[in-house]
Amino acid sequence: MPDVQLTKGLHEACGVFGIYGHPHAGELVYYGLHALQHRGQESAGIVAVDQGKFTTHKGMGLVTDVFRNGDAFDLSGESAVGHVMYANGSPTITEVQPLVFKYRAGTIALAHNGALVNAAQIRRSLELQGSIFQTNSDIEVIAHLIARSPHDDLVSALRHALGVIEGSYALLVLAENKLIACLDPQGLRPLALGKVGGSYCFASETCAFDLIEAEYIRHVEPGEMVVVGQDQLRSLKIGEPSPAFCSFEYIYFARPDSNLTSNTSVHQIRRKLGKQLAAESPVEADLVLGVPDSSLSAAIGYAEALSIPFEMGLVKNRYVGRTFIQGKQESRTRDVKLKLSVVRKVVEGKTVVMVDDSLIRGTTSRRIVRLLRDAGVKAVHVRISSPPVAHPCFYGIDISSHDELIVTHKSVAEIQSYIGADSLEFLTIDGLVRAIRGTNDNHGLCLACFNGKYPTTIDFQTEEAQNE
Amino acid sequence: MPDVQLTKGLHEACGVFGIYGHPHAGELVYYGLHALQHRGQESAGIVAVDQGKFTTHKGMGLVTDVFRNGDAFDLSGESAVGHVMYANGSPTITEVQPLVFKYRAGTIALAHNGALVNAAQIRRSLELQGSIFQTNSDIEVIAHLIARSPHDDLVSALRHALGVIEGSYALLVLAENKLIACLDPQGLRPLALGKVGGSYCFASETCAFDLIEAEYIRHVEPGEMVVVGQDQLRSLKIGEPSPAFCSFEYIYFARPDSNLTSNTSVHQIRRKLGKQLAAESPVEADLVLGVPDSSLSAAIGYAEALSIPFEMGLVKNRYVGRTFIQGKQESRTRDVKLKLSVVRKVVEGKTVVMVDDSLIRGTTSRRIVRLLRDAGVKAVHVRISSPPVAHPCFYGIDISSHDELIVTHKSVAEIQSYIGADSLEFLTIDGLVRAIRGTNDNHGLCLACFNGKYPTTIDFQTEEAQNE
Amino acid sequence: MPDVQLTKGLHEACGVFGIYGHPHAGELVYYGLHALQHRGQESAGIVAVDQGKFTTHKGMGLVTDVFRNGDAFDLSGESAVGHVMYANGSPTITEVQPLVFKYRAGTIALAHNGALVNAAQIRRSLELQGSIFQTNSDIEVIAHLIARSPHDDLVSALRHALGVIEGSYALLVLAENKLIACLDPQGLRPLALGKVGGSYCFASETCAFDLIEAEYIRHVEPGEMVVVGQDQLRSLKIGEPSPAFCSFEYIYFARPDSNLTSNTSVHQIRRKLGKQLAAESPVEADLVLGVPDSSLSAAIGYAEALSIPFEMGLVKNRYVGRTFIQGKQESRTRDVKLKLSVVRKVVEGKTVVMVDDSLIRGTTSRRIVRLLRDAGVKAVHVRISSPPVAHPCFYGIDISSHDELIVTHKSVAEIQSYIGADSLEFLTIDGLVRAIRGTNDNHGLCLACFNGKYPTTIDFQTEEAQNE
Amino acid sequence: MPDVQLTKGLHEACGVFGIYGHPHAGELVYYGLHALQHRGQESAGIVAVDQGKFTTHKGMGLVTDVFRNGDAFDLSGESAVGHVMYANGSPTITEVQPLVFKYRAGTIALAHNGALVNAAQIRRSLELQGSIFQTNSDIEVIAHLIARSPHDDLVSALRHALGVIEGSYALLVLAENKLIACLDPQGLRPLALGKVGGSYCFASETCAFDLIEAEYIRHVEPGEMVVVGQDQLRSLKIGEPSPAFCSFEYIYFARPDSNLTSNTSVHQIRRKLGKQLAAESPVEADLVLGVPDSSLSAAIGYAEALSIPFEMGLVKNRYVGRTFIQGKQESRTRDVKLKLSVVRKVVEGKTVVMVDDSLIRGTTSRRIVRLLRDAGVKAVHVRISSPPVAHPCFYGIDISSHDELIVTHKSVAEIQSYIGADSLEFLTIDGLVRAIRGTNDNHGLCLACFNGKYPTTIDFQTEEAQNE
Repeated sequence: MPDVQLTKGLHEACGVFGIYGHPHAGELVYYGLHALQHRGQESAGIVAVDQGKFTTHKGMGLVTDVFRNGDAFDLSGESAVGHVMYANGSPTITEVQPLVFKYRAGTIALAHNGALVNAAQIRRSLELQGSIFQTNSDIEVIAHLIARSPHDDLVSALRHALGVIEGSYALLVLAENKLIACLDPQGLRPLALGKVGGSYCFASETCAFDLIEAEYIRHVEPGEMVVVGQDQLRSLKIGEPSPAFCSFEYIYFARPDSNLTSNTSVHQIRRKLGKQLAAESPVEADLVLGVPDSSLSAAIGYAEALSIPFEMGLVKNRYVGRTFIQGKQESRTRDVKLKLSVVRKVVEGKTVVMVDDSLIRGTTSRRIVRLLRDAGVKAVHVRISSPPVAHPCFYGIDISSHDELIVTHKSVAEIQSYIGADSLEFLTIDGLVRAIRGTNDNHGLCLACFNGKYPTTIDFQTEEAQNE
Repeated sequence: MPDVQLTKGLHEACGVFGIYGHPHAGELVYYGLHALQHRGQESAGIVAVDQGKFTTHKGMGLVTDVFRNGDAFDLSGESAVGHVMYANGSPTITEVQPLVFKYRAGTIALAHNGALVNAAQIRRSLELQGSIFQTNSDIEVIAHLIARSPHDDLVSALRHALGVIEGSYALLVLAENKLIACLDPQGLRPLALGKVGGSYCFASETCAFDLIEAEYIRHVEPGEMVVVGQDQLRSLKIGEPSPAFCSFEYIYFARPDSNLTSNTSVHQIRRKLGKQLAAESPVEADLVLGVPDSSLSAAIGYAEALSIPFEMGLVKNRYVGRTFIQGKQESRTRDVKLKLSVVRKVVEGKTVVMVDDSLIRGTTSRRIVRLLRDAGVKAVHVRISSPPVAHPCFYGIDISSHDELIVTHKSVAEIQSYIGADSLEFLTIDGLVRAIRGTNDNHGLCLACFNGKYPTTIDFQTEEAQNE
Repeated sequence: MPDVQLTKGLHEACGVFGIYGHPHAGELVYYGLHALQHRGQESAGIVAVDQGKFTTHKGMGLVTDVFRNGDAFDLSGESAVGHVMYANGSPTITEVQPLVFKYRAGTIALAHNGALVNAAQIRRSLELQGSIFQTNSDIEVIAHLIARSPHDDLVSALRHALGVIEGSYALLVLAENKLIACLDPQGLRPLALGKVGGSYCFASETCAFDLIEAEYIRHVEPGEMVVVGQDQLRSLKIGEPSPAFCSFEYIYFARPDSNLTSNTSVHQIRRKLGKQLAAESPVEADLVLGVPDSSLSAAIGYAEALSIPFEMGLVKNRYVGRTFIQGKQESRTRDVKLKLSVVRKVVEGKTVVMVDDSLIRGTTSRRIVRLLRDAGVKAVHVRISSPPVAHPCFYGIDISSHDELIVTHKSVAEIQSYIGADSLEFLTIDGLVRAIRGTNDNHGLCLACFNGKYPTTIDFQTEEAQNE
Repeated sequence: MPDVQLTKGLHEACGVFGIYGHPHAGELVYYGLHALQHRGQESAGIVAVDQGKFTTHKGMGLVTDVFRNGDAFDLSGESAVGHVMYANGSPTITEVQPLVFKYRAGTIALAHNGALVNAAQIRRSLELQGSIFQTNSDIEVIAHLIARSPHDDLVSALRHALGVIEGSYALLVLAENKLIACLDPQGLRPLALGKVGGSYCFASETCAFDLIEAEYIRHVEPGEMVVVGQDQLRSLKIGEPSPAFCSFEYIYFARPDSNLTSNTSVHQIRRKLGKQLAAESPVEADLVLGVPDSSLSAAIGYAEALSIPFEMGLVKNRYVGRTFIQGKQESRTRDVKLKLSVVRKVVEGKTVVMVDDSLIRGTTSRRIVRLLRDAGVKAVHVRISSPPVAHPCFYGIDISSHDELIVTHKSVAEIQSYIGADSLEFLTIDGLVRAIRGTNDNHGLCLACFNGKYPTTIDFQTEEAQNE
């Protein structure tokens, strides 16, 4: 397989929230985005619609920054969609979602989490038909396809458009009199349906429902389109479902209090990842540390399985500024220290297991191991609660080339040496599946970044050509 | 003639500046926009291109606010275009120009001063062909027409596009390897060509050349397209010239130190307007006042013609905040007082002539007369250095309906009574022409807002239908 | 004992950092304050001195906000002091520390953590002698005493001044050629001495040393004055030591990775508090939860002692905005939900122990219990890892009156009912002492907020009179 | 006379406004400061008092910036004082006036325009008595003197304090139940008394009264203290009046629509300065230009006296940003061009008289002459409507040393050559007096910067010593 690098667009992991027909629509979307803030910190935006009039408020930064003057509460209208973005590249304000498009049948606002794998080809084709593009966003492609569809009604046009595209999309489309949620046939990204005060709402994760006290109903199915309007909820089929849910949502991305299926929280899955890791790669140690916050659940599971005390040996700084200015005074470890502190008295002279959720480039692990050594640990065994990331992701996680992955260049032994650990073990792919599924059946999970088996076609040659 | 109201888009009076092939392109555009700030204070933006890569910096507010961190100097590239906008309606950041469009033949940035009169019809037609719109801006219409043109090269495509549209446009188009300036066949808005350090540049007004020490070469001709590239300057014809330059640029809009034709400054024209007004409507008085800043030139001319002392009886406040917050303490005249002060000792007990450049709704004149009366004038004779505005403008000046014009509802005598003046006289249309032209020949001037004779076709019925 | 209310000044819990003779003094203080951010988020400031010239940068907000443009790195001088403030009341920019005072012997900058108990009496006396005050800050009182001291040299004048005052002070005084650290005879607040690159530094907590890679030397002793200058470090005695270190620093205030004595981290002490609490008030349950972040250590200890699984059933939101704007949509629990989420799947149908570090007014505990009940817990047993707070603090913790303490009005049974718990138990005072000390000897600990035994004289009548 | 340099403190030209007993006190002070903005753009502040509680809002920048959120309207209390500051040196937020001081008899807020000449000596003496200083401000000296006065009531204490100081002060003192205005015996700075809605108010200039629609009553007299309280207005004597009003207020500083005495506006005085200058130094020319805005009045007077046309040949840019960022593109004249434009067509080929109000360092005049020459003038005759500034000012105008004055180093002929004029003439001191007074009697005018005759004692030796 050729080494590809994917820089053609904004392949983001984002959060979306939408609600239809609620007197405090803007406010609820605001709280919803707040709960989804971990999915994207680059920008935030809300579009509300009031009798055909669409109002947008958006900006760069956190939800609380963008809406610092209560702007969300002033958005007029009973239906609204919102978006938080994590972008690689340098997004401009023009690309901040939701985006609003006018076309022959009216106005629509789109908010999207995912990444289309054939966006470039479709853009090229649309351009040749005379289309203009103002952004690098996938959703501008979708908007063009809707506008050029032979169908006049939005639902048909949208199904037509989605029939052409491939990749991951958890997409909300707000029109004057309906809100439509669409999930790709693989169901790569999460999208849940809830209800609050009689109004239906959608969110990337269920934690958003908890905050606004909405009732969780179910997750949107792979290949499903849910249309909410005056005539209430309708479910339609976009394409043949072929489920492949992103395993990285379990490992790292989702919030621990969300549930990605109806029965288990992300925290509980991570705990099981830790237990499975303990079963596969046990080690004798005085204590187990998790790298806060995302690895604490796995660390607790690992510690419990081996009856080694779980300890808060690493503490996260609550007040890390997002754009930290560097001074002139050099330091090998200050960057990581600003975010993370070692409780020296806990680790001094001890053999510790440091559990982290993933290891991609190795730089962060290396710096944390160094921190622990500086604090006087006797030995540090690193355990990663996921398999080695060996392939780029084309569906929304920001891993864009083989070249940036440490496993492309180093064996596990070399990585161990690079990060300075006394031992290093990763969870196996089988173990990952077992922890998530409870069985060995990996059906319905996307493991492409671990095993290179992509659930959609990927045109590597096109990608290569583009990056030359 | 039916009463029309024009609210379909952003009909703005704006300023544009562009330069091709200068090592400090971004910086010179920044200074150029600064000199054109009087043409638009709502937003500012610059797009520069460096070997095919377009970089944008834009925002709401004054040039110095938007570029407060020296951002203009960091824009990479030797060619750039900039824009300052005065918008009626509430423009959003999405609509701030220049806008960048990608289409099959590459990327272009557009900056535009003017207003298309058939934009709505073209939008409708484009939508029916499957186009999407993200803004209300006329230039998005132009971009679509370019992209859908049968021609592959930009110059041909642009000529094709402009062949379809009607109205006023002083348009700059920046591509990877050329900068194109286009002026509508009527030449309604000003657009000048200059040269600085071997590089050609374009500006809405010549005052921008003075600031950057560029040499003024000539004005772009009505119906002319000037293409600047590696192979230097080419002049092409867009359409048959039928000159009709906006007389309001002389009266109010342009900066006094600009010259709109090669021989005379705006200040000098305004002085002549004052002299002509004196000849038509003299009055005995102790002194002549101009409403600062735009009416001072005419007031000086009026005073000189009648040998009445010109006095600084009204002083403009240098520090007016743009968004002044209102308190609870009421006042009939505070709004105007925050901007303008009467020198009480100058006017007390005197018969004064107050010269203003135009009277459209009458509210400002009314408040200034009240200010003067509060300061103890004996009598106040109001003289307006332009004819009554009796018709809306469709070419970029923000006068959108008959209904908002005071002459639609009141006779001159009633207006005099409304504003509280002891006498009120307007310049005649003939006098206006004579002062500008030096002859009675009104050829080449747009006087539509005074006499209703529009230099392009206006489809009033369409407009009416749209406003229902 | 009368019920007192203490509103006369700014009784804050703050953080101080100072360094003498380092080429990157401003930068190191900046990092030091960053590590101490948890001690005060209202304001931040740094004063540096360069050959007698004092430069100040300060403002309201977090360290990263106040110094967002790298201002700390530009402060000229090799010695500097900094301060972060938590203030009750509404401090103004005038009161943001460090404050700079000029007096007959030169200029000094003061940064202070603590609260003087006789400040009001001294202010009155100074005013009667003709002193003026520009702030409500205790350090202005100290500055006056220094200036009015009969001694010309700063060290003597400072000792003279401190001889008059009573209460808690961890005080840094920066002069042109020395940096002086002073701790009250009770040693109520922490103050540690470190060394980095040959330069001595002082910090409220040792976590600041870890960040800047300074070596921890020792804590400043109760009643000690440490003078750092050209002639290196000197230790002087301010008053007869009578140690009474604030037990609340262990319970809640200090960062878990700090060590307040040389041998143990705060985290370890809190773990012991949890173990002791388990020994005193065990309960059968499915799992133990800690209220993040400050109660996690105690929860881990509690869980371990009883072999009940410790679980992350409550998750802290990483992106809580400091000033959250309230909308119109009401909610009983949104305030706490914005900060804290329940992992529903973890707690649903379970009997849980919720460990919190302290219970003062009961409102927060009540809301968290409600959150847990809404998430479907079967039973919730609340365990508090400190005794009931029954008395106000006059030494810097913001507990200012009996009236605001829930134990003044309710029995433990009533509190249990108020917060809606199935059972509620507090740690005993003896248990607290044993966990901290390892013995029953409470010598050297201030337990005044629990047992009302204040380590200094408190003139309740004066306080009462003042509050009428 | 020795050459002195005065850098010991903040010798500023500022604006003050105060009002007693009005329901919208904060709002009226805000508008008042807005009208006085030309007297200081560095900082702005308002202190209001409500039943003994003083509230402050202040900051760096323009009035509209500091009070951008309507903060002035929220200040609680019926009495308030405000201040705008022009500071040489780099004032910090600590020094922004009004300042609030607490002392044995209560709390006072002080706002001051002027400069004390013996402040340094008094500070020294106060320090030796044990006083501390937190600012470099003169008013902290005054506050100390009040607090150390033997008198308990504020009026007596203030008179006692003012008896010690020398120099210029137009001082407002706000206490819980009174507002006191004080003017030094020379009456160097303006201070006017007005009345609005039954409430007395004070302002540096009468233009502030016009904005808030207050009635002008009279100016405060040299050496007068006006006390406004419940028992209405009382006038007391501070010291023996020895009037010496700053002539530079007429020449440059005050706003043209203010009247500094009861009968004439500043504009009218400046017009007379122009006429007198024409009588003394006529020249044949095609037209007369004034340097906007402050020299327009004099230019009109000069033109009228000689019957040469007055022309708007120089136009001020309305949108100059206060902190203009410099790019890399060099220019000899851009700095001045950003503020000022030449109307080229007006001056091209003409012999012009350029009237400016003053010439101190010569750099600005030099740049404007260059601008005119670049625009093609045939000849430029510079006429200055004030005498050469030959001596520093110790009373509030920012001219601090002989060394920075061009006349110290160059003859008039050399200055003419330096600025590149075809001729250069200054108004004579006698002419200045005649224009202001109508007679040759210079009694009551401070002409110290022209003739070196200081109206108070100046201890040059002390100054010299301090500056070594």
